[in-house]
Amino acid sequence: MPYFSNTVNHIRSSEIRDLMKLATRPDVISFAGGMPNNHLFPVKEVDEILQNLPLDKKETAFQYGPTSGYPPLLATLKEYLRKKGLPVDTHKLMITTGSLQAINILGMEFIDPGDVVFTENPSFIGGLAVFKAFQAELVGIPLQSDGLNLDILKEKLEQYNPKILYIIPNFHNPAGIIYSIEKRKKLIDLLKGRDIILLEDDAYNELYFSKEAQAETKPLMSMDTKGIEMVYTGSFSKILGPGLRLGWMLASPEIYDKAEIIKQGIDACSPNYTQVIANEFMRQGYMDRYLDKIRKEYAERSRLMLDALQEYMPEEIKWSHPKGGFYIWVELPEDMDSTDVLKESIEKGAVFVTGKTFDPENKQNNFFRLSYSNMDKNQIAPGIEIIASAIKNNIQKQKTVLQ
Amino acid sequence: MPYFSNTVNHIRSSEIRDLMKLATRPDVISFAGGMPNNHLFPVKEVDEILQNLPLDKKETAFQYGPTSGYPPLLATLKEYLRKKGLPVDTHKLMITTGSLQAINILGMEFIDPGDVVFTENPSFIGGLAVFKAFQAELVGIPLQSDGLNLDILKEKLEQYNPKILYIIPNFHNPAGIIYSIEKRKKLIDLLKGRDIILLEDDAYNELYFSKEAQAETKPLMSMDTKGIEMVYTGSFSKILGPGLRLGWMLASPEIYDKAEIIKQGIDACSPNYTQVIANEFMRQGYMDRYLDKIRKEYAERSRLMLDALQEYMPEEIKWSHPKGGFYIWVELPEDMDSTDVLKESIEKGAVFVTGKTFDPENKQNNFFRLSYSNMDKNQIAPGIEIIASAIKNNIQKQKTVLQ
Repeated sequence: MPYFSNTVNHIRSSEIRDLMKLATRPDVISFAGGMPNNHLFPVKEVDEILQNLPLDKKETAFQYGPTSGYPPLLATLKEYLRKKGLPVDTHKLMITTGSLQAINILGMEFIDPGDVVFTENPSFIGGLAVFKAFQAELVGIPLQSDGLNLDILKEKLEQYNPKILYIIPNFHNPAGIIYSIEKRKKLIDLLKGRDIILLEDDAYNELYFSKEAQAETKPLMSMDTKGIEMVYTGSFSKILGPGLRLGWMLASPEIYDKAEIIKQGIDACSPNYTQVIANEFMRQGYMDRYLDKIRKEYAERSRLMLDALQEYMPEEIKWSHPKGGFYIWVELPEDMDSTDVLKESIEKGAVFVTGKTFDPENKQNNFFRLSYSNMDKNQIAPGIEIIASAIKNNIQKQKTVLQ
Repeated sequence: MPYFSNTVNHIRSSEIRDLMKLATRPDVISFAGGMPNNHLFPVKEVDEILQNLPLDKKETAFQYGPTSGYPPLLATLKEYLRKKGLPVDTHKLMITTGSLQAINILGMEFIDPGDVVFTENPSFIGGLAVFKAFQAELVGIPLQSDGLNLDILKEKLEQYNPKILYIIPNFHNPAGIIYSIEKRKKLIDLLKGRDIILLEDDAYNELYFSKEAQAETKPLMSMDTKGIEMVYTGSFSKILGPGLRLGWMLASPEIYDKAEIIKQGIDACSPNYTQVIANEFMRQGYMDRYLDKIRKEYAERSRLMLDALQEYMPEEIKWSHPKGGFYIWVELPEDMDSTDVLKESIEKGAVFVTGKTFDPENKQNNFFRLSYSNMDKNQIAPGIEIIASAIKNNIQKQKTVLQ
């Protein structure tokens, strides 16, 4: 019951649902959805995998599996994460039904009503919804172009005793930034010895656009984090397909053991069927080739969007320059409301997600998120032109009011 | 946090985990697992489906879907449930990640710590674990061979104000019984006008062994239930494969709307990949043919087990005679403990699940569950012989003690 009350308020009040409906209208160009375009999925590759799969693996795919995950996938994933420097020998790995489930399980394990949770501002809608559902008090720490504002974090740490700090250091959703290596180190130093869980959501880790960007994607959990309780989550949603509903969680044995018991009561295990596919996709080298392809694709899409923004946006408007991932975060003049811009854009045929949707306090609205992952590439420029024109009209209206 | 404490006690104290480990030892005949044998899954049929699936459906399979479920599967399932007389026009349907998730969502929606939940005694372990996890006070109502003991239910309804009554009317897990049509009607009459949710878990509906048994599988929710708040759950685990992690929930719009919001925070949506498969499996007629096949298979397995019980068990022992499903429920003499029998059986090479595992109060242990769904058919008789011999030895020991 308590679970319910806040979730409703949060989700009902957001514009996500209506936007999603609009986003499926064929005449509207949608920069709203944070999912890959349907034509970008590795359909052929998975067809090949399934056609060559031996009978016993196919049969296993239909069966229940251990709550922790399909053992061959756990083994493959462990080696994959080991290469990223993650502490797979001292910590335990669990497959989850999407990485959102990992956040949900942690919420069940740790959050009592009224507990404080720190998040970035802005932050991932799904994460915010989970924390609000458990009636956490959310405190947003502002993001800068290289990561959290540590001065403000320090201040807030003196005021509150947060259970969790939730961050997305790589190719941030929605802010489109990446934490600098220096900021990562400083954040770790700041948290050492404190009674707080640092929850690192690394769903976009693989989606860098250059070698230089790749070098910056170093997970915090792979660094010297002695004295900090960390949980690391990842996802197959961006590197294979969200429809498989697979993510993972790496945590200390203490946190893991409770999490496994909780998961057992939630859905017993994640789908073996899609775990068998994901394992072969990684093990047989399909993933490496597929990642090469989609990194180029998203880099191109990001360039197309940056070019269009440069061409159409009035000079008052600023935006992030992503080094990877799906998103560009646009800043409007302080007195402009992105919902006003959205209303006009929708009429003209383009949608995005308003800024306050990503604000833990659901307030700040002179920002909005553009995603370039989902529409046809040739729609990017016309869509940005529509939004730019809506912004120009809003600027004009404000000037008229001021006169 | 509160979620955690009780679950641990429940699951840790049960023998399920150790049994599961034993069950995978190749030299042990396991009657423990409530899952289909790997060789019984429709692997070929699903291969055919995937090979003939058009590209756009394959792409959709990789994508996020609505929280409520993949719309074509919802439509197919709606017609399937309509044929069973279920109120699909006044109620709303949701696809869940296994039917366990449906129970878990209802727990989140309705159960506050200390709330009373009525279950059958014995009942499904997974259901019991969910209710205990939400710190419900469980009250077990004894099962008879034709369904709940209504006299005791009536008494308990005078003593308590339960939020939920959870029942498995068809081919009960673990008791192996089916509710008579008369008992169903009487139960409905007894609950009319009361402020209680009747939760009908119908995971085994399709697994009848005869036309006569089929006639008895009429869901309570398809009967005249005006004045009762009902929720109906079903599962693809027994009619396609548990590895797909798909179940469903049919509920009033009020209960459904909250459940959908809760599910959105748990895992966003169930796997589209397996929903696309399940839809084609039903829509293209594969399911009907597959059900014909597995009904015959389980009927044969049940006969083999009944024959072996008849041949090997001492006369003090009674057991249920299933008309469908996976299970036979064995009753030992009142002063015998099924854990003692299990210990001896394990040494000799056969395992089952002890009775108290299914008791909401985790006490009554002169029963145990045999499942005939998972082992090789030719292991049934030798396995039963082992268990019968362990029982005989226990009877002998008791006689010796009494002398």
